[in-house]
Amino acid sequence: MVNNAKGYRVWYIPDGYIPPISTGSLVSHESICVLNANEEAANLSVTIYFEDRDPIEEVPVRVEGRRTAHVRTSTLEKDGESIPVGVPYAMEVRSDAPIIVQYSRMDATQPANTLATTMGFPVA
Amino acid sequence: MVNNAKGYRVWYIPDGYIPPISTGSLVSHESICVLNANEEAANLSVTIYFEDRDPIEEVPVRVEGRRTAHVRTSTLEKDGESIPVGVPYAMEVRSDAPIIVQYSRMDATQPANTLATTMGFPVA
Amino acid sequence: MVNNAKGYRVWYIPDGYIPPISTGSLVSHESICVLNANEEAANLSVTIYFEDRDPIEEVPVRVEGRRTAHVRTSTLEKDGESIPVGVPYAMEVRSDAPIIVQYSRMDATQPANTLATTMGFPVA
Amino acid sequence: MVNNAKGYRVWYIPDGYIPPISTGSLVSHESICVLNANEEAANLSVTIYFEDRDPIEEVPVRVEGRRTAHVRTSTLEKDGESIPVGVPYAMEVRSDAPIIVQYSRMDATQPANTLATTMGFPVA
Repeated sequence: MVNNAKGYRVWYIPDGYIPPISTGSLVSHESICVLNANEEAANLSVTIYFEDRDPIEEVPVRVEGRRTAHVRTSTLEKDGESIPVGVPYAMEVRSDAPIIVQYSRMDATQPANTLATTMGFPVA
Repeated sequence: MVNNAKGYRVWYIPDGYIPPISTGSLVSHESICVLNANEEAANLSVTIYFEDRDPIEEVPVRVEGRRTAHVRTSTLEKDGESIPVGVPYAMEVRSDAPIIVQYSRMDATQPANTLATTMGFPVA
Repeated sequence: MVNNAKGYRVWYIPDGYIPPISTGSLVSHESICVLNANEEAANLSVTIYFEDRDPIEEVPVRVEGRRTAHVRTSTLEKDGESIPVGVPYAMEVRSDAPIIVQYSRMDATQPANTLATTMGFPVA
Repeated sequence: MVNNAKGYRVWYIPDGYIPPISTGSLVSHESICVLNANEEAANLSVTIYFEDRDPIEEVPVRVEGRRTAHVRTSTLEKDGESIPVGVPYAMEVRSDAPIIVQYSRMDATQPANTLATTMGFPVA
Protein backbone atom coordinates (compact mmCIF):
# COMPACT_ATOMS: atom_id res chain seq x y z
CA MET A 1 0.00 0.00 0.00
CA VAL A 2 1.27 3.44 -0.93
CA ASN A 3 1.41 5.90 1.94
CA ASN A 4 0.98 9.43 0.58
CA ALA A 5 1.26 11.31 3.88
CA LYS A 6 4.50 12.96 2.70
CA GLY A 7 3.62 13.23 -0.99
CA TYR A 8 3.97 11.06 -4.09
CA ARG A 9 6.79 9.18 -5.84
CA VAL A 10 6.06 10.00 -9.50
CA TRP A 11 5.37 13.52 -10.78
CA TYR A 12 4.92 14.97 -14.26
CA ILE A 13 5.45 18.52 -15.61
CA PRO A 14 4.41 18.81 -19.29
CA ASP A 15 5.30 22.48 -19.91
CA GLY A 16 9.06 22.88 -19.70
CA TYR A 17 10.79 25.72 -21.57
CA ILE A 18 13.95 27.64 -20.73
CA PRO A 19 13.60 31.12 -22.26
CA PRO A 20 16.71 31.82 -24.37
CA ILE A 21 16.81 35.55 -23.61
CA SER A 22 17.36 37.50 -20.39
CA THR A 23 17.13 41.24 -19.87
CA GLY A 24 16.76 43.37 -16.75
CA SER A 25 18.35 42.34 -13.47
CA LEU A 26 17.19 38.71 -13.37
CA VAL A 27 18.08 35.69 -15.50
CA SER A 28 15.36 33.65 -17.23
CA HIS A 29 15.13 30.28 -15.52
CA GLU A 30 12.91 27.45 -14.38
CA SER A 31 13.03 25.43 -11.19
CA ILE A 32 11.59 22.20 -9.95
CA CYS A 33 11.04 22.84 -6.26
CA VAL A 34 11.12 19.63 -4.23
CA LEU A 35 10.13 19.18 -0.60
CA ASN A 36 11.38 16.07 1.17
CA ALA A 37 9.51 16.03 4.48
CA ASN A 38 10.82 12.57 5.39
CA GLU A 39 13.64 11.97 7.88
CA GLU A 40 15.79 10.21 5.27
CA ALA A 41 17.22 11.48 1.97
CA ALA A 42 15.24 11.03 -1.25
CA ASN A 43 16.93 9.89 -4.46
CA LEU A 44 15.26 11.39 -7.51
CA SER A 45 15.54 10.47 -11.15
CA VAL A 46 14.41 13.03 -13.76
CA THR A 47 13.56 11.99 -17.33
CA ILE A 48 13.34 14.78 -19.91
CA TYR A 49 10.98 14.36 -22.90
CA PHE A 50 11.19 16.35 -26.14
CA GLU A 51 8.98 16.97 -29.16
CA ASP A 52 11.20 15.41 -31.80
CA ARG A 53 13.89 13.24 -30.20
CA ASP A 54 14.32 10.51 -27.62
CA PRO A 55 14.28 11.46 -23.91
CA ILE A 56 17.29 12.17 -21.70
CA GLU A 57 16.68 9.45 -19.16
CA GLU A 58 17.12 9.28 -15.42
CA VAL A 59 19.17 12.30 -14.41
CA PRO A 60 19.93 11.79 -10.69
CA VAL A 61 19.08 14.40 -8.01
CA ARG A 62 19.45 13.94 -4.25
CA VAL A 63 17.41 15.81 -1.62
CA GLU A 64 18.36 15.37 2.04
CA GLY A 65 15.76 14.57 4.70
CA ARG A 66 13.67 17.48 6.05
CA ARG A 67 15.07 19.74 3.36
CA THR A 68 13.81 21.48 0.24
CA ALA A 69 15.80 21.76 -2.99
CA HIS A 70 14.94 24.34 -5.65
CA VAL A 71 16.68 22.80 -8.66
CA ARG A 72 17.26 24.91 -11.77
CA THR A 73 16.37 22.76 -14.76
CA SER A 74 19.42 24.13 -16.62
CA THR A 75 21.63 22.27 -14.11
CA LEU A 76 20.14 18.83 -14.89
CA GLU A 77 22.86 16.95 -16.76
CA LYS A 78 23.78 13.39 -17.66
CA ASP A 79 26.56 12.05 -19.90
CA GLY A 80 27.22 15.59 -21.09
CA GLU A 81 23.59 16.11 -22.13
CA SER A 82 21.43 18.89 -20.71
CA ILE A 83 18.24 20.76 -21.66
CA PRO A 84 18.77 23.22 -24.53
CA VAL A 85 17.29 26.70 -24.18
CA GLY A 86 14.36 27.72 -26.39
CA VAL A 87 13.03 24.18 -26.83
CA PRO A 88 9.68 22.79 -25.57
CA TYR A 89 10.15 19.80 -23.28
CA ALA A 90 8.50 17.92 -20.38
CA MET A 91 9.71 16.23 -17.20
CA GLU A 92 9.02 13.05 -15.27
CA VAL A 93 10.32 13.05 -11.68
CA ARG A 94 10.63 9.70 -9.88
CA SER A 95 11.70 9.39 -6.25
CA ASP A 96 12.39 6.49 -3.91
CA ALA A 97 10.58 8.37 -1.13
CA PRO A 98 7.35 10.41 -1.21
CA ILE A 99 7.97 14.07 -2.08
CA ILE A 100 6.08 17.14 -3.26
CA VAL A 101 7.07 18.87 -6.52
CA GLN A 102 6.21 22.39 -7.66
CA TYR A 103 7.30 23.95 -10.97
CA SER A 104 8.07 27.65 -11.52
CA ARG A 105 9.35 29.70 -14.44
CA MET A 106 10.80 33.22 -14.36
CA ASP A 107 10.73 34.61 -17.88
CA ALA A 108 13.04 37.63 -18.20
CA THR A 109 12.78 37.96 -21.99
CA GLN A 110 11.43 41.45 -21.39
CA PRO A 111 12.97 43.86 -18.84
CA ALA A 112 9.63 43.41 -17.07
CA ASN A 113 9.93 39.81 -15.89
CA THR A 114 7.03 37.43 -15.46
CA LEU A 115 6.63 34.52 -13.07
CA ALA A 116 4.39 31.44 -13.39
CA THR A 117 3.97 28.49 -11.03
CA THR A 118 1.96 25.28 -10.61
CA MET A 119 2.14 22.09 -8.64
CA GLY A 120 3.51 19.15 -10.57
CA PHE A 121 1.03 16.41 -11.45
CA PRO A 122 1.35 13.31 -9.23
CA VAL A 123 0.42 9.84 -10.45
CA ALA A 124 1.83 7.39 -7.89
CA MET B 1 -10.05 -0.65 -14.36
CA VAL B 2 -8.39 2.63 -15.26
CA ASN B 3 -4.60 2.66 -14.89
CA ASN B 4 -3.47 6.22 -14.16
CA ALA B 5 0.26 5.53 -13.92
CA LYS B 6 0.87 7.63 -17.06
CA GLY B 7 -1.88 10.19 -16.49
CA TYR B 8 -5.58 10.53 -17.38
CA ARG B 9 -7.68 10.29 -20.54
CA VAL B 10 -10.05 13.25 -20.06
CA TRP B 11 -8.89 16.75 -19.12
CA TYR B 12 -10.68 20.11 -18.83
CA ILE B 13 -9.38 23.68 -19.09
CA PRO B 14 -12.13 26.26 -18.37
CA ASP B 15 -10.15 29.48 -18.91
CA GLY B 16 -9.19 29.74 -22.56
CA TYR B 17 -8.57 33.15 -24.13
CA ILE B 18 -6.26 34.16 -26.98
CA PRO B 19 -5.27 37.81 -26.38
CA PRO B 20 -5.99 39.76 -29.58
CA ILE B 21 -3.03 42.14 -29.20
CA SER B 22 0.74 41.58 -29.24
CA THR B 23 3.47 44.10 -28.56
CA GLY B 24 7.13 43.72 -27.68
CA SER B 25 9.21 40.85 -29.07
CA LEU B 26 6.80 37.98 -28.29
CA VAL B 27 3.39 37.06 -29.71
CA SER B 28 0.40 36.55 -27.38
CA HIS B 29 -0.47 32.86 -27.37
CA GLU B 30 -1.72 29.91 -25.37
CA SER B 31 -0.54 26.32 -25.43
CA ILE B 32 -1.86 23.00 -24.24
CA CYS B 33 1.28 21.10 -23.27
CA VAL B 34 0.79 17.34 -23.52
CA LEU B 35 3.12 14.64 -22.26
CA ASN B 36 2.67 11.15 -23.67
CA ALA B 37 4.89 8.94 -21.51
CA ASN B 38 3.58 5.75 -23.10
CA GLU B 39 5.47 3.75 -25.72
CA GLU B 40 2.66 4.15 -28.29
CA ALA B 41 1.19 7.27 -29.86
CA ALA B 42 -1.83 8.96 -28.25
CA ASN B 43 -4.74 10.20 -30.36
CA LEU B 44 -6.36 13.26 -28.81
CA SER B 45 -9.67 14.90 -29.54
CA VAL B 46 -10.18 18.50 -28.39
CA THR B 47 -13.67 19.99 -28.00
CA ILE B 48 -13.89 23.78 -27.71
CA TYR B 49 -16.76 25.33 -25.70
CA PHE B 50 -17.94 28.94 -26.00
CA GLU B 51 -20.17 31.31 -24.03
CA ASP B 52 -22.85 31.86 -26.66
CA ARG B 53 -22.62 29.23 -29.38
CA ASP B 54 -22.32 25.49 -29.88
CA PRO B 55 -18.91 23.85 -29.39
CA ILE B 56 -16.35 23.04 -32.06
CA GLU B 57 -16.23 19.30 -31.53
CA GLU B 58 -13.44 16.77 -31.65
CA VAL B 59 -10.46 18.48 -33.25
CA PRO B 60 -7.85 15.72 -33.69
CA VAL B 61 -4.29 15.99 -32.31
CA ARG B 62 -1.66 13.21 -32.39
CA VAL B 63 1.23 12.90 -29.91
CA GLU B 64 3.87 10.24 -30.56
CA GLY B 65 5.01 7.83 -27.83
CA ARG B 66 7.58 9.14 -25.32
CA ARG B 67 7.18 12.65 -26.71
CA THR B 68 5.74 15.96 -25.55
CA ALA B 69 3.74 18.30 -27.78
CA HIS B 70 3.23 21.95 -26.92
CA VAL B 71 0.22 22.77 -29.09
CA ARG B 72 -0.73 26.39 -29.73
CA THR B 73 -4.48 26.64 -29.36
CA SER B 74 -4.60 28.95 -32.40
CA THR B 75 -3.56 25.98 -34.55
CA LEU B 76 -6.54 23.82 -33.53
CA GLU B 77 -8.77 23.64 -36.60
CA LYS B 78 -11.58 21.51 -38.00
CA ASP B 79 -13.74 22.01 -41.10
CA GLY B 80 -12.31 25.51 -41.47
CA GLU B 81 -13.29 26.48 -37.93
CA SER B 82 -10.73 27.63 -35.35
CA ILE B 83 -10.73 29.60 -32.07
CA PRO B 84 -11.28 33.34 -32.60
CA VAL B 85 -9.01 35.76 -30.71
CA GLY B 86 -10.46 37.89 -27.90
CA VAL B 87 -13.23 35.41 -27.02
CA PRO B 88 -13.64 33.46 -23.75
CA TYR B 89 -13.72 29.72 -24.33
CA ALA B 90 -12.95 26.38 -22.62
CA MET B 91 -11.43 23.07 -23.70
CA GLU B 92 -12.09 19.37 -23.19
CA VAL B 93 -9.17 17.10 -24.14
CA ARG B 94 -9.88 13.38 -24.67
CA SER B 95 -7.17 10.83 -25.41
CA ASP B 96 -7.14 7.12 -26.20
CA ALA B 97 -4.07 6.72 -23.93
CA PRO B 98 -3.31 8.26 -20.52
CA ILE B 99 -1.57 11.63 -20.83
CA ILE B 100 -0.77 14.71 -18.71
CA VAL B 101 -2.01 18.16 -19.80
CA GLN B 102 -0.77 21.56 -18.68
CA TYR B 103 -2.14 24.90 -19.90
CA SER B 104 -0.10 28.10 -20.30
CA ARG B 105 -0.84 31.58 -21.62
CA MET B 106 1.66 34.26 -22.67
CA ASP B 107 -0.14 37.60 -22.76
CA ALA B 108 1.86 40.17 -24.73
CA THR B 109 -0.84 42.84 -24.81
CA GLN B 110 1.64 45.10 -23.04
CA PRO B 111 5.32 45.33 -24.04
CA ALA B 112 5.91 43.77 -20.63
CA ASN B 113 4.57 40.27 -21.21
CA THR B 114 2.97 38.10 -18.56
CA LEU B 115 2.88 34.32 -18.28
CA ALA B 116 0.37 32.11 -16.41
CA THR B 117 0.23 28.33 -16.12
CA THR B 118 -1.78 25.57 -14.45
CA MET B 119 -2.28 21.84 -14.78
CA GLY B 120 -5.42 20.89 -16.63
CA PHE B 121 -8.19 19.30 -14.56
CA PRO B 122 -8.41 15.50 -15.00
CA VAL B 123 -11.68 13.62 -14.58
CA ALA B 124 -11.10 10.12 -16.01
CA MET C 1 -22.75 7.79 -5.76
CA VAL C 2 -21.18 10.94 -7.10
CA ASN C 3 -20.30 10.83 -10.80
CA ASN C 4 -17.36 13.15 -11.46
CA ALA C 5 -17.07 12.54 -15.21
CA LYS C 6 -18.02 16.18 -15.89
CA GLY C 7 -16.36 17.72 -12.82
CA TYR C 8 -17.36 18.46 -9.22
CA ARG C 9 -20.22 20.24 -7.46
CA VAL C 10 -18.30 22.15 -4.74
CA TRP C 11 -15.19 24.26 -5.42
CA TYR C 12 -13.11 26.58 -3.26
CA ILE C 13 -10.85 29.53 -4.18
CA PRO C 14 -9.06 30.96 -1.11
CA ASP C 15 -7.14 33.83 -2.76
CA GLY C 16 -9.61 36.39 -4.02
CA TYR C 17 -8.56 40.04 -4.41
CA ILE C 18 -9.75 42.69 -6.86
CA PRO C 19 -6.85 45.11 -7.39
CA PRO C 20 -8.13 48.65 -6.75
CA ILE C 21 -5.92 50.30 -9.39
CA SER C 22 -5.77 49.99 -13.19
CA THR C 23 -3.26 51.53 -15.55
CA GLY C 24 -2.30 50.77 -19.13
CA SER C 25 -4.88 49.50 -21.63
CA LEU C 26 -6.46 46.76 -19.49
CA VAL C 27 -8.62 46.89 -16.35
CA SER C 28 -7.60 44.94 -13.22
CA HIS C 29 -10.05 42.08 -12.76
CA GLU C 30 -10.58 38.51 -11.67
CA SER C 31 -12.73 35.83 -13.22
CA ILE C 32 -14.12 32.50 -12.17
CA CYS C 33 -14.15 30.50 -15.39
CA VAL C 34 -16.78 27.77 -15.34
CA LEU C 35 -17.21 24.95 -17.84
CA ASN C 36 -20.57 23.18 -17.89
CA ALA C 37 -20.02 20.14 -20.13
CA ASN C 38 -23.44 18.70 -19.34
CA GLU C 39 -26.43 18.90 -21.68
CA GLU C 40 -28.55 20.80 -19.10
CA ALA C 41 -27.96 24.17 -17.44
CA ALA C 42 -26.09 24.35 -14.12
CA ASN C 43 -27.33 26.57 -11.30
CA LEU C 44 -24.43 27.88 -9.22
CA SER C 45 -24.41 29.54 -5.82
CA VAL C 46 -21.31 31.54 -4.82
CA THR C 47 -20.57 32.33 -1.17
CA ILE C 48 -17.97 35.04 -0.51
CA TYR C 49 -15.87 34.86 2.68
CA PHE C 50 -13.96 37.78 4.21
CA GLU C 51 -11.27 38.28 6.87
CA ASP C 52 -13.31 40.32 9.33
CA ARG C 53 -17.01 40.08 8.57
CA ASP C 54 -19.73 37.53 7.81
CA PRO C 55 -19.92 36.04 4.31
CA ILE C 56 -22.11 37.21 1.44
CA GLU C 57 -24.05 34.01 0.96
CA GLU C 58 -25.34 32.21 -2.10
CA VAL C 59 -25.05 34.63 -4.99
CA PRO C 60 -26.79 32.87 -7.92
CA VAL C 61 -25.06 32.27 -11.30
CA ARG C 62 -26.51 30.25 -14.21
CA VAL C 63 -24.41 28.50 -16.86
CA GLU C 64 -26.21 26.94 -19.82
CA GLY C 65 -25.50 23.38 -20.97
CA ARG C 66 -22.41 22.82 -23.15
CA ARG C 67 -21.29 26.38 -22.49
CA THR C 68 -18.52 28.13 -20.59
CA ALA C 69 -19.01 31.31 -18.56
CA HIS C 70 -16.09 33.54 -17.58
CA VAL C 71 -17.67 35.49 -14.71
CA ARG C 72 -15.96 38.64 -13.44
CA THR C 73 -16.07 38.51 -9.65
CA SER C 74 -16.93 42.24 -9.57
CA THR C 75 -20.30 41.37 -11.13
CA LEU C 76 -21.33 38.98 -8.32
CA GLU C 77 -24.10 40.77 -6.43
CA LYS C 78 -26.90 39.98 -4.02
CA ASP C 79 -29.25 42.29 -2.12
CA GLY C 80 -27.11 45.25 -3.19
CA GLU C 81 -23.93 43.69 -1.78
CA SER C 82 -20.89 42.97 -3.92
CA ILE C 83 -17.15 42.38 -3.41
CA PRO C 84 -15.25 45.55 -2.51
CA VAL C 85 -11.95 46.24 -4.31
CA GLY C 86 -8.67 46.03 -2.39
CA VAL C 87 -9.97 43.51 0.17
CA PRO C 88 -8.78 39.90 0.66
CA TYR C 89 -11.61 37.41 0.29
CA ALA C 90 -12.33 33.78 -0.68
CA MET C 91 -15.03 31.97 -2.65
CA GLU C 92 -17.09 28.81 -2.35
CA VAL C 93 -18.83 27.74 -5.57
CA ARG C 94 -21.69 25.21 -5.33
CA SER C 95 -23.49 23.81 -8.36
CA ASP C 96 -26.45 21.49 -8.88
CA ALA C 97 -24.54 19.80 -11.73
CA PRO C 98 -20.87 18.79 -12.01
CA ILE C 99 -18.70 21.62 -13.39
CA ILE C 100 -15.03 22.62 -13.64
CA VAL C 101 -13.85 25.93 -12.13
CA GLN C 102 -10.66 27.84 -12.90
CA TYR C 103 -9.66 31.15 -11.29
CA SER C 104 -7.64 33.90 -13.00
CA ARG C 105 -6.53 37.40 -12.01
CA MET C 106 -5.28 40.17 -14.29
CA ASP C 107 -3.49 42.74 -12.15
CA ALA C 108 -3.08 46.03 -14.03
CA THR C 109 -1.82 48.05 -11.07
CA GLN C 110 1.31 48.70 -13.11
CA PRO C 111 1.21 49.61 -16.82
CA ALA C 112 2.91 46.24 -17.26
CA ASN C 113 0.05 43.91 -16.37
CA THR C 114 0.47 40.50 -14.78
CA LEU C 115 -1.72 37.42 -15.07
CA ALA C 116 -2.07 34.48 -12.66
CA THR C 117 -4.26 31.39 -12.90
CA THR C 118 -5.04 28.14 -11.07
CA MET C 119 -7.72 25.51 -11.01
CA GLY C 120 -10.19 25.91 -8.16
CA PHE C 121 -10.01 23.28 -5.42
CA PRO C 122 -12.80 20.66 -5.65
CA VAL C 123 -14.15 18.86 -2.59
CA ALA C 124 -17.35 17.12 -3.69
CA MET D 1 -12.69 8.42 8.52
CA VAL D 2 -11.51 11.76 7.19
CA ASN D 3 -14.28 14.08 5.99
CA ASN D 4 -12.90 16.34 3.27
CA ALA D 5 -16.08 18.32 2.59
CA LYS D 6 -14.41 21.51 3.87
CA GLY D 7 -10.88 20.75 2.69
CA TYR D 8 -7.80 18.98 4.07
CA ARG D 9 -5.73 19.14 7.24
CA VAL D 10 -2.19 18.89 5.82
CA TRP D 11 -0.93 21.01 2.91
CA TYR D 12 2.49 21.45 1.30
CA ILE D 13 3.99 24.34 -0.71
CA PRO D 14 7.49 23.52 -2.01
CA ASP D 15 8.32 26.81 -3.77
CA GLY D 16 8.65 29.52 -1.15
CA TYR D 17 10.81 32.59 -1.83
CA ILE D 18 10.48 36.17 -0.60
CA PRO D 19 12.02 38.42 -3.26
CA PRO D 20 14.56 40.70 -1.54
CA ILE D 21 13.93 43.70 -3.79
CA SER D 22 10.88 45.90 -4.32
CA THR D 23 10.42 48.68 -6.84
CA GLY D 24 7.35 50.43 -8.21
CA SER D 25 4.29 51.02 -6.05
CA LEU D 26 3.94 47.51 -4.58
CA VAL D 27 6.09 45.52 -2.15
CA SER D 28 7.36 42.04 -3.08
CA HIS D 29 5.55 39.50 -0.92
CA GLU D 30 4.04 36.05 -0.68
CA SER D 31 0.84 34.94 1.02
CA ILE D 32 -0.67 31.69 2.12
CA CYS D 33 -4.39 32.24 1.64
CA VAL D 34 -6.45 30.06 3.96
CA LEU D 35 -10.20 29.49 3.83
CA ASN D 36 -11.85 28.10 6.95
CA ALA D 37 -15.41 27.23 5.86
CA ASN D 38 -16.20 25.54 9.16
CA GLU D 39 -18.26 27.12 11.92
CA GLU D 40 -15.41 26.88 14.46
CA ALA D 41 -11.92 28.38 14.40
CA ALA D 42 -9.01 26.42 12.89
CA ASN D 43 -5.63 26.28 14.61
CA LEU D 44 -2.81 26.01 12.10
CA SER D 45 0.81 25.09 12.56
CA VAL D 46 3.29 26.04 9.82
CA THR D 47 6.68 24.32 9.51
CA ILE D 48 9.27 26.03 7.29
CA TYR D 49 11.87 23.89 5.50
CA PHE D 50 15.17 25.18 4.07
CA GLU D 51 17.88 23.92 1.72
CA ASP D 52 20.75 23.86 4.19
CA ARG D 53 19.49 24.07 7.76
CA ASP D 54 16.92 22.55 10.09
CA PRO D 55 13.29 23.65 9.78
CA ILE D 56 11.54 26.34 11.82
CA GLU D 57 8.87 24.16 13.34
CA GLU D 58 5.22 24.72 14.14
CA VAL D 59 4.60 28.44 13.84
CA PRO D 60 1.01 28.94 15.09
CA VAL D 61 -1.69 30.69 13.01
CA ARG D 62 -5.38 30.98 13.94
CA VAL D 63 -8.22 31.42 11.42
CA GLU D 64 -11.72 32.08 12.78
CA GLY D 65 -14.75 30.11 11.57
CA ARG D 66 -16.31 31.15 8.24
CA ARG D 67 -13.40 33.50 7.59
CA THR D 68 -10.45 33.67 5.21
CA ALA D 69 -6.96 34.79 6.23
CA HIS D 70 -4.39 35.93 3.68
CA VAL D 71 -1.20 35.53 5.73
CA ARG D 72 2.02 37.16 4.51
CA THR D 73 4.78 34.63 4.95
CA SER D 74 7.10 37.39 6.20
CA THR D 75 4.90 37.66 9.30
CA LEU D 76 5.35 34.00 10.32
CA GLU D 77 7.55 34.08 13.44
CA LYS D 78 8.48 31.84 16.35
CA ASP D 79 11.07 32.33 19.09
CA GLY D 80 12.43 35.34 17.20
CA GLU D 81 12.96 33.31 14.02
CA SER D 82 11.30 34.22 10.73
CA ILE D 83 11.85 33.53 7.00
CA PRO D 84 14.82 35.42 5.55
CA VAL D 85 14.35 37.18 2.21
CA GLY D 86 16.16 35.86 -0.87
CA VAL D 87 16.30 32.26 0.37
CA PRO D 88 14.54 29.22 -1.16
CA TYR D 89 12.27 27.48 1.34
CA ALA D 90 9.14 25.31 1.56
CA MET D 91 6.11 25.13 3.86
CA GLU D 92 4.03 22.47 5.57
CA VAL D 93 0.65 23.68 6.88
CA ARG D 94 -1.16 21.54 9.44
CA SER D 95 -4.61 22.37 10.80
CA ASP D 96 -6.92 20.86 13.42
CA ALA D 97 -9.88 21.44 11.09
CA PRO D 98 -10.20 20.95 7.32
CA ILE D 99 -9.16 24.05 5.36
CA ILE D 100 -8.18 25.05 1.82
CA VAL D 101 -4.77 26.65 1.15
CA GLN D 102 -3.68 28.67 -1.87
CA TYR D 103 -0.22 30.20 -2.36
CA SER D 104 0.53 33.45 -4.22
CA ARG D 105 3.65 35.51 -4.83
CA MET D 106 3.86 39.13 -5.98
CA ASP D 107 7.37 39.77 -7.27
CA ALA D 108 8.09 43.50 -7.49
CA THR D 109 11.80 43.18 -8.24
CA GLN D 110 11.11 45.05 -11.45
CA PRO D 111 8.87 48.14 -11.61
CA ALA D 112 6.62 45.88 -13.69
CA ASN D 113 5.41 43.46 -11.04
CA THR D 114 4.52 39.84 -11.68
CA LEU D 115 2.02 37.62 -9.87
CA ALA D 116 1.94 33.80 -9.62
CA THR D 117 -0.53 31.56 -7.82
CA THR D 118 -1.29 27.86 -7.24
CA MET D 119 -3.30 25.74 -4.86
CA GLY D 120 -1.25 24.16 -2.11
CA PHE D 121 -0.80 20.39 -2.31
CA PRO D 122 -3.04 18.46 0.13
CA VAL D 123 -2.05 15.08 1.54
CA ALA D 124 -4.43 14.39 4.44
